[in-house]
Amino acid sequence: MATANSVLANDGAKGPAPPRLASVYSEVQTSRLNHPLPLPSVLKGPFKLVDGPPSSAAGNPDEIAKLFPNLFGQPSANLVPTGSDPSDLAGGLRIGVVLSGGQAPGGHNVISGIFDYLQERTNGSILYGFKGGPAGIMKCKYVELTPDFIYPYRNQGGFDMICSGRDKIETPEQFKQAEETAMKLDLDGLVVIGGDDSNTNACLLAEYFRQKNMKTRVIGCPKTIDGDLKCKEVPASFGFDTACKIYSEMIGNVMTDARSTGKYYHFVRLMGRAASHITLECALQTHPNIAFIGEEVAAKKQTLKNVTDYITDVICKRAELGYNYGVILIPEGLIDFIPEVQQLIAELNEILAHDVVDEDGLWKKKLQHQSLHLFEFLPQAIKEQLLLERDPHGNVQVSKIETEKMLISMVETELEKRKLEGKYAGHFKGQSHFFGYEGRCGLPTNFDATYCYALGYAAGALLCSGKTGLISSVGNLNAPVNEWTVGGTALTSLMDVERRHGKFKPVIKKAMVELEGAPFQKFASMRDVWALKNRYISPGPIQFIGPGSNDVNHTLLLELGAQA
Amino acid sequence: MATANSVLANDGAKGPAPPRLASVYSEVQTSRLNHPLPLPSVLKGPFKLVDGPPSSAAGNPDEIAKLFPNLFGQPSANLVPTGSDPSDLAGGLRIGVVLSGGQAPGGHNVISGIFDYLQERTNGSILYGFKGGPAGIMKCKYVELTPDFIYPYRNQGGFDMICSGRDKIETPEQFKQAEETAMKLDLDGLVVIGGDDSNTNACLLAEYFRQKNMKTRVIGCPKTIDGDLKCKEVPASFGFDTACKIYSEMIGNVMTDARSTGKYYHFVRLMGRAASHITLECALQTHPNIAFIGEEVAAKKQTLKNVTDYITDVICKRAELGYNYGVILIPEGLIDFIPEVQQLIAELNEILAHDVVDEDGLWKKKLQHQSLHLFEFLPQAIKEQLLLERDPHGNVQVSKIETEKMLISMVETELEKRKLEGKYAGHFKGQSHFFGYEGRCGLPTNFDATYCYALGYAAGALLCSGKTGLISSVGNLNAPVNEWTVGGTALTSLMDVERRHGKFKPVIKKAMVELEGAPFQKFASMRDVWALKNRYISPGPIQFIGPGSNDVNHTLLLELGAQA
Repeated sequence: MATANSVLANDGAKGPAPPRLASVYSEVQTSRLNHPLPLPSVLKGPFKLVDGPPSSAAGNPDEIAKLFPNLFGQPSANLVPTGSDPSDLAGGLRIGVVLSGGQAPGGHNVISGIFDYLQERTNGSILYGFKGGPAGIMKCKYVELTPDFIYPYRNQGGFDMICSGRDKIETPEQFKQAEETAMKLDLDGLVVIGGDDSNTNACLLAEYFRQKNMKTRVIGCPKTIDGDLKCKEVPASFGFDTACKIYSEMIGNVMTDARSTGKYYHFVRLMGRAASHITLECALQTHPNIAFIGEEVAAKKQTLKNVTDYITDVICKRAELGYNYGVILIPEGLIDFIPEVQQLIAELNEILAHDVVDEDGLWKKKLQHQSLHLFEFLPQAIKEQLLLERDPHGNVQVSKIETEKMLISMVETELEKRKLEGKYAGHFKGQSHFFGYEGRCGLPTNFDATYCYALGYAAGALLCSGKTGLISSVGNLNAPVNEWTVGGTALTSLMDVERRHGKFKPVIKKAMVELEGAPFQKFASMRDVWALKNRYISPGPIQFIGPGSNDVNHTLLLELGAQA
Repeated sequence: MATANSVLANDGAKGPAPPRLASVYSEVQTSRLNHPLPLPSVLKGPFKLVDGPPSSAAGNPDEIAKLFPNLFGQPSANLVPTGSDPSDLAGGLRIGVVLSGGQAPGGHNVISGIFDYLQERTNGSILYGFKGGPAGIMKCKYVELTPDFIYPYRNQGGFDMICSGRDKIETPEQFKQAEETAMKLDLDGLVVIGGDDSNTNACLLAEYFRQKNMKTRVIGCPKTIDGDLKCKEVPASFGFDTACKIYSEMIGNVMTDARSTGKYYHFVRLMGRAASHITLECALQTHPNIAFIGEEVAAKKQTLKNVTDYITDVICKRAELGYNYGVILIPEGLIDFIPEVQQLIAELNEILAHDVVDEDGLWKKKLQHQSLHLFEFLPQAIKEQLLLERDPHGNVQVSKIETEKMLISMVETELEKRKLEGKYAGHFKGQSHFFGYEGRCGLPTNFDATYCYALGYAAGALLCSGKTGLISSVGNLNAPVNEWTVGGTALTSLMDVERRHGKFKPVIKKAMVELEGAPFQKFASMRDVWALKNRYISPGPIQFIGPGSNDVNHTLLLELGAQA
């Protein structure tokens, strides 16, 4: 049912995605069309690829070697300038590009980068855009990209030039379909723009094509606002910078409101389910009173009561200082990181699959002691949600829980208790926010616009140089664009395996927030001051010209600084 | 209870509002500090005030004349340049300023404008900022404003320089308190920055001081993001421009997301309870598929079923075109404009005050037929909310109803029905948003920053020229700043009376969306195209430099254009 819907959805997106009309653009959109996109100097002149040493895997190299017999061990490659002129241009290449998964600002610029590379560095090449994500590859739905078609999307947000989709190429039949499309279009190469799953899929496709002795090569590009696809060679996934700056603008505004009004606690849930990079970056940009980092909550095996108590403690201390307001950041995936919540949900799924929920609550006797305790601790609305709203598989829908509202309710209860005990004399009013969709499709920042263009240009260079199974990697991002490094990293080198249904599956491990890493350490060193003092920063709206317009996000700067 | 809370809240806001630390400002905040604030040319040289003809009232002039025996009929005044030098500077004026009601971007610049006027055009004047709104006047809580104190707030959002509050000066005791404060501080004048209620209050205070033969004069300034305090002489309230641009940025992002993803209908509720100016302006900026204007819903006596059907019809037509996505704007006050909802709520308040809600639903028999019908039509969650959540007076809390979620639920039900009837074959997924607090405290746009500074500077000029009971009015806003007109409009001329508790109360009528006005007419002429075609515009983040940075909002341009 869910799958059927999602296929329908892709069809909907693919079919009649109407082309943009630059004639109805806003002044800012129009001004962005001709915003110059500087290239790293190595991409400006003649260059050659230099291979590094053979690569291994992020974990279980033996299993990865078995899964990728043709690609495992291949070196990463770096572009270096050469003296010679690119007089013998590659000719007549046929390249495909696909957007995979959720939107991230800058995707259109990756496509522009590939296109411009082909225009400027090859003769008579063609770029096909597969429509609606990987399903477009399987069904051979595509559009031939032309300068006129691409132009209105330059430096614009969204993925609507060719739209995206969440399908995967998984079954033998689906690989066969992809093969047929590659043959039909006589593809020399394919660029897959996506997150960890999509890049894993890209690598499987590269392996498949190589094994079939096909000429079609596959290059990945790191995309996700969540920021959880990165490693030493790929220092950032695109879209993270823009999304965090959009959320931080809103958080900064809400902070100014909180301090002006003096009577609201704003509980802000931020997109980012699997990792808490967005919340951490927004915290570094805005200095909230509290920010939860899921990875820390998990590492410390914190309970929901711990989380509630931490908030309540800060609220009580602030009340003593006369501050009955504040701003609290909550990663979307917070409760996924709380072990006892996972346990409760697992037990509920089991019980609800077999039993009815009787009104007298006899079913609760099947819960383990700790889970029953937690269940009783939850607000009534959340209890009902857990029992009533289930997905087509009968499972509790954790993603539907509005954590920010749940926490407001639990904090209210705890504060009332403390008030009765004489330990709290303030007043509390919670306001809930969820910042998500607003950030996925904004106009890309100067950083994301330039970074994406370089990623696309590099992907073109890698494909034309005969590479496959690499992810486009642009580094040295804290230096001026001129000095950015460009290359491709072996996708297999990012991989580990997971055991699923008795089989090893390759996965690019999600990059979680490192508790020893520079961004978290900086946050941890400052949060106690932020909790009680008011050190709010309002980053303001993203600027494209003038002060602040070329700033890079804190996470990237701190990580690269720590590496240096 | 509610009142007690609100007083507590104000106390909280007032007490320990910590001063800003420009040292922790973001780059954009810092860059705004020295953003130049051009003055209308008439404020740059020597000027004199020229009185217009005697004024009347917006309605019931006889009653207004009785309520304001000292002020009624006084002329509005315009500033005109004179040849003479302002060699005889007024000296030693003592002026107070207060922020009243909800935040609006630009409030700090009004204060900067007053301050700079006093610095530049008088000798040795003092400006007091009353803390936490009108309560600060009554309790004589104030801070003496100095250049160092004011500087970090220049062009910054929020009201936290002196904070605001929602108290009113109403009872004889409260007027006496205000009098005592004015005497104690030896005030020559007071500037009240607020909305319709606050300016009404300002006028009552002006009348009171005049009647008491006190020297303290009172000048108002038009503030509200809602845009519902305006008239011919006062073409805009400040904050509306910035707030609408912030909301429109988010709406534009969500639109790009909708068209990229192809599977969500985004229901966006926008702040603005009493009037729908914000929704109208955001619609003109972004071209949503649907936008409801409360004033039209009321004029056409539409029902909730009408509203639901309109949405459902558009969704069905779009599905036939292959579009299973869209964006719908809903003013916060929508259901306040639906007559049958008002009727139902009135009946519920009556019934719930006297009866218990029995589980068998016998209480429902007391509802009138139409109200019962409507009640049964509502989603279960809303029914429960209506019955369970009541304010301290026992009344249904209409403001807590999340209209966007209610409409999603009702549209789902209607679509399922049509699906069964074979009239709809699309798929629908609703996403709800509320954009409110994010917009009240953003960094003011160049327009709001300049407009507010001129309003403040003009208020200083009016006070120093001996005027009272006027609202600072800056006009010709669609021309370059140089050509803006400056003056003061008699507050009594904006007033009408309302009958409350058997007495006439003066009110500045809220300016509702005029269905014959140019902004609504433009919207009405385009909405059918927007509904089915995709004409989305993404205004992008507010820019302070470069393209778009000096744009004025559509509402103002259209209204002024229609006047011209």
